[in-house]
Amino acid sequence: MIMSESIIKFTRGVPPPESFPTQELIECSSNVLTKHSSVVLQYGPSGGFPPLRNLIANQCDVEDNRVILGQGSLQLVDFLARIILNPGDLAYVENPSYDRTVTLLRRAGANIIGFTLGQNGYDIHEVESRLKKGDRPKIFYSIPDFQNPSGVVIPLETRQRLVELAQAYGFWIMEDTPYRRLRYTGQEIPTMFDLAPDRVIRMSSYSKLISPGLRVGYVVAPPAVAGRLLKYAEDTYINCSYFNQAIVYDYIERGWLEKNISRLKNLYEPRLNTILKCLNQEMAQFGVWHKPKGGFFVGLMLNQEVKADELLAGAHKEGLVLSDGRGFFVNGGGDQFVRLPFCALTPDEIQEGINRLAKVVRSLHTN
Amino acid sequence: MIMSESIIKFTRGVPPPESFPTQELIECSSNVLTKHSSVVLQYGPSGGFPPLRNLIANQCDVEDNRVILGQGSLQLVDFLARIILNPGDLAYVENPSYDRTVTLLRRAGANIIGFTLGQNGYDIHEVESRLKKGDRPKIFYSIPDFQNPSGVVIPLETRQRLVELAQAYGFWIMEDTPYRRLRYTGQEIPTMFDLAPDRVIRMSSYSKLISPGLRVGYVVAPPAVAGRLLKYAEDTYINCSYFNQAIVYDYIERGWLEKNISRLKNLYEPRLNTILKCLNQEMAQFGVWHKPKGGFFVGLMLNQEVKADELLAGAHKEGLVLSDGRGFFVNGGGDQFVRLPFCALTPDEIQEGINRLAKVVRSLHTN
Repeated sequence: MIMSESIIKFTRGVPPPESFPTQELIECSSNVLTKHSSVVLQYGPSGGFPPLRNLIANQCDVEDNRVILGQGSLQLVDFLARIILNPGDLAYVENPSYDRTVTLLRRAGANIIGFTLGQNGYDIHEVESRLKKGDRPKIFYSIPDFQNPSGVVIPLETRQRLVELAQAYGFWIMEDTPYRRLRYTGQEIPTMFDLAPDRVIRMSSYSKLISPGLRVGYVVAPPAVAGRLLKYAEDTYINCSYFNQAIVYDYIERGWLEKNISRLKNLYEPRLNTILKCLNQEMAQFGVWHKPKGGFFVGLMLNQEVKADELLAGAHKEGLVLSDGRGFFVNGGGDQFVRLPFCALTPDEIQEGINRLAKVVRSLHTN
Repeated sequence: MIMSESIIKFTRGVPPPESFPTQELIECSSNVLTKHSSVVLQYGPSGGFPPLRNLIANQCDVEDNRVILGQGSLQLVDFLARIILNPGDLAYVENPSYDRTVTLLRRAGANIIGFTLGQNGYDIHEVESRLKKGDRPKIFYSIPDFQNPSGVVIPLETRQRLVELAQAYGFWIMEDTPYRRLRYTGQEIPTMFDLAPDRVIRMSSYSKLISPGLRVGYVVAPPAVAGRLLKYAEDTYINCSYFNQAIVYDYIERGWLEKNISRLKNLYEPRLNTILKCLNQEMAQFGVWHKPKGGFFVGLMLNQEVKADELLAGAHKEGLVLSDGRGFFVNGGGDQFVRLPFCALTPDEIQEGINRLAKVVRSLHTN
């Protein structure tokens, strides 16, 4: 039971504390310190703990030096923006997109163009049309699997065509894949990296699969980009913590990652089902949303003209904390958009949260 | 005994593996995961693990929100450069200075002016003279205690006058203090932060006091700077690892840091004495050096006209790896400068290393 007074947060995409494999991480920490203290407690090359780089390189079928470990993957997005973009350069993104990446692209001086996401991704013809008219973007940043914030999966045909366009027009695809392994139903679609490993900079992290607090993310980049990234990273922080990276490596080597992913799917799938059921019951008349088969988010688009400030204030009165939808939209708009992260809430909390959201929207409707 | 074939490295300022308190860190890791997993394995505000911020704030007698933990302190130097400097802005440094900071200041577009270091610091009158002639620097970056790469300590009177000048001309002093606690003999001098806590941005880290691999550094900044730094850090990486920060906190709370610093002093002081003795025996006719009372480095200035490339190549032939002295000098020069980090070498290795260095220099002399 949820106390009606307790605050419910539909804000950031954080995992719940019950998802953390604490006992296993205690064992891994002790093990790596016992066996590798002279390496993991020392400085090291900026690419990161070699065994973990090697493991990821083998998964991606590339040379080890194309894999660079970072303090989470966001920091690597910043580095990539710094080394690839000059002020005024064009960057393509999905619209809406991950607000933190949008902030970093803006900080690097990018001119950002967003392609509107529908239930089935963005319109690749629109991308092609802009390119034909003369756009020369440096990058296309995409979260093709269970996109943040919409939950949408980009179809294979769109991925294939985007890769062709990237090759034809010489831009990099930054493919961010933190939620990819958290598919609760249905079949995996090939990554764009699988389709064109020399044209795609793939990123991911262990934040959603083990723990965000370890701050271990990675990028798999084409050689020319990887070399510059290594230098930029070394100049910035010498190296990230090999200790944390070695813990992740040890955890994977023991076979615990795959078991943990199964456990997480069992934990999150009922939460996804609950939020979809509740939205259907409470919100059908007030908006539309994609029904994701994985990840952390359902993106709700309200069908009435509300102002984000009124929505957030109304939610606050009901003990509901929402993210500002405008942060995800790059060309203005987003007042009617509500990102609903469902993994960190129990089914009861989700039920109560959607009840409150419906109440807020209903009251705005009446006004 | 040192095999004469083994390579001896006088390169970076790294601690030796035998300095790492591995068993204690195993205990701290297990403890913080057992007690605080829901905090240390989660995302959190960018300032860092609150108890460690509070502990440092109490040491520095400031509010907690003026303390920001980073992934080592170098990353924080980068952030400070980004938020304080615009391209073309003037930055003052000691000359020579820490090569990695110089790289970051250049990357932020700074116009760098260096003040030549002698045995007794730089000439503060020269600083004053430039300011009177119209220089308007945004920052003065200083490593006042056992400076990297020279080993020099800036005298109290220079610190006092620099603080007065910073107040009069409105620039920030960035005071980097990673070696301060590693004083083997003599008395501590007040920090510039002690003299003017609202004009000085003080940085330090636990890399030299516990382990670099934890990547825990910090900055204590005036409120206006701290607020911007927190936002910049969050935008860049959300937060650094609370796990690592909590390990440092637990280690300090158990009273182990002070014991470890004593242990490190006992380990490093004989190494300093050895290198000073060897330099005196082997190098007196070839150069001059400051005799530091702490820290990691002796900076040797050769008194003959050598080219760095010849010196490095000659050293390489003798199984000696040196840093390129030119990297530490901001206005050109540095060919004759050799940074000698002594902490990570045993007394026998130091003896052999200085023997080899003397041989190299003697052979260049003869040519």
